[in-house]
Amino acid sequence: MDIDFWFEFGSTYSYPAAMRVEELASQAGVGIHWRPFLLGAIFREQGLSDSPFNLYPAKGRYMWHDLERTCRALGIPFQRPSQFPRNGLLAARVACRFDKEAWLPDFVRAVYRANFVDDADIAGASVVGRCIADAGAQPEEVLAQAQSPESKAKLRAQTDDAMRLGIFGAPTVVVGEELFWGNDRLEDALGRAASRSG
Amino acid sequence: MDIDFWFEFGSTYSYPAAMRVEELASQAGVGIHWRPFLLGAIFREQGLSDSPFNLYPAKGRYMWHDLERTCRALGIPFQRPSQFPRNGLLAARVACRFDKEAWLPDFVRAVYRANFVDDADIAGASVVGRCIADAGAQPEEVLAQAQSPESKAKLRAQTDDAMRLGIFGAPTVVVGEELFWGNDRLEDALGRAASRSG
Repeated sequence: MDIDFWFEFGSTYSYPAAMRVEELASQAGVGIHWRPFLLGAIFREQGLSDSPFNLYPAKGRYMWHDLERTCRALGIPFQRPSQFPRNGLLAARVACRFDKEAWLPDFVRAVYRANFVDDADIAGASVVGRCIADAGAQPEEVLAQAQSPESKAKLRAQTDDAMRLGIFGAPTVVVGEELFWGNDRLEDALGRAASRSG
Repeated sequence: MDIDFWFEFGSTYSYPAAMRVEELASQAGVGIHWRPFLLGAIFREQGLSDSPFNLYPAKGRYMWHDLERTCRALGIPFQRPSQFPRNGLLAARVACRFDKEAWLPDFVRAVYRANFVDDADIAGASVVGRCIADAGAQPEEVLAQAQSPESKAKLRAQTDDAMRLGIFGAPTVVVGEELFWGNDRLEDALGRAASRSG
């Protein structure tokens, strides 16, 4: 059984999960549907004006320490971004429009590395374009298509889907109808998917 | 090095952590300081009028499913309480006043079982008294001492300490000055404490 990997480019714990999910899924013999969505829209629906990590400073301080500790334990490079959360809208439109392309996983990881290793502003077309090129696709063409009305509508609809599924944070892996929230649940989710494939 | 195990009797993920911490700490050769506190006071300080699991229904629905799944995987019995969160004030006063007694860990587990297995209202003296008796202590004497002005002040001061340490949720294990939040981080916390003991 395949998994749906729901992620947000600005989300901190989505970073280690996105860096690991393809290799772990491959080891488990499980396919991935990449599902970018806009976590900010879901927070607004809940009445939150910002990331809970900014609204609740103690929680935010803990998260940065825990994320650094988590990445170190997993052997994943990490540098705390100077801005949080970064605006992942353009990158999410690209990932949503081109979600089945062979270059998509490389693009996703390139954007996360830009945000969480290089401290680059992923909101702009220059950084996103560089990530597209790094993944082996054509930046101009991809960026133009990602900003078409159809692409914008597709990402909005996908974010609505996330809400309907009961998603409230990122990353979330959905296996059938079961949710697994957080980088901490990635292995459990893949184990569940693998057991349902047999 | 010892750990500080910060817990709240109403807190859902504190339940599996409290049921496991003594055995895991013993295996790791680590001592435990039991630190009950009032999570509601910390939520109020953050401007929250209730548990986030009640304020954000999608998060709450997920938590109940995840907690059930977690307890099943750990072999810990679980029945969803008909009321959430339950008021753990009296039980916390007992645990705070008698935190170094040999019967304390049994009392803590008895209260959690009452809440999360027997669906009993832990707010009242009858249930808390039964838990004290189950742990081998004298309910009348313990309850009277737990409700003295000194005992009430001790729990308030301990909750203030939790805030000063940056604690924002339960359970939290503190090793030196490092925080590990959640049942998911219990093993990591004990591993850190064991490595600092050597």
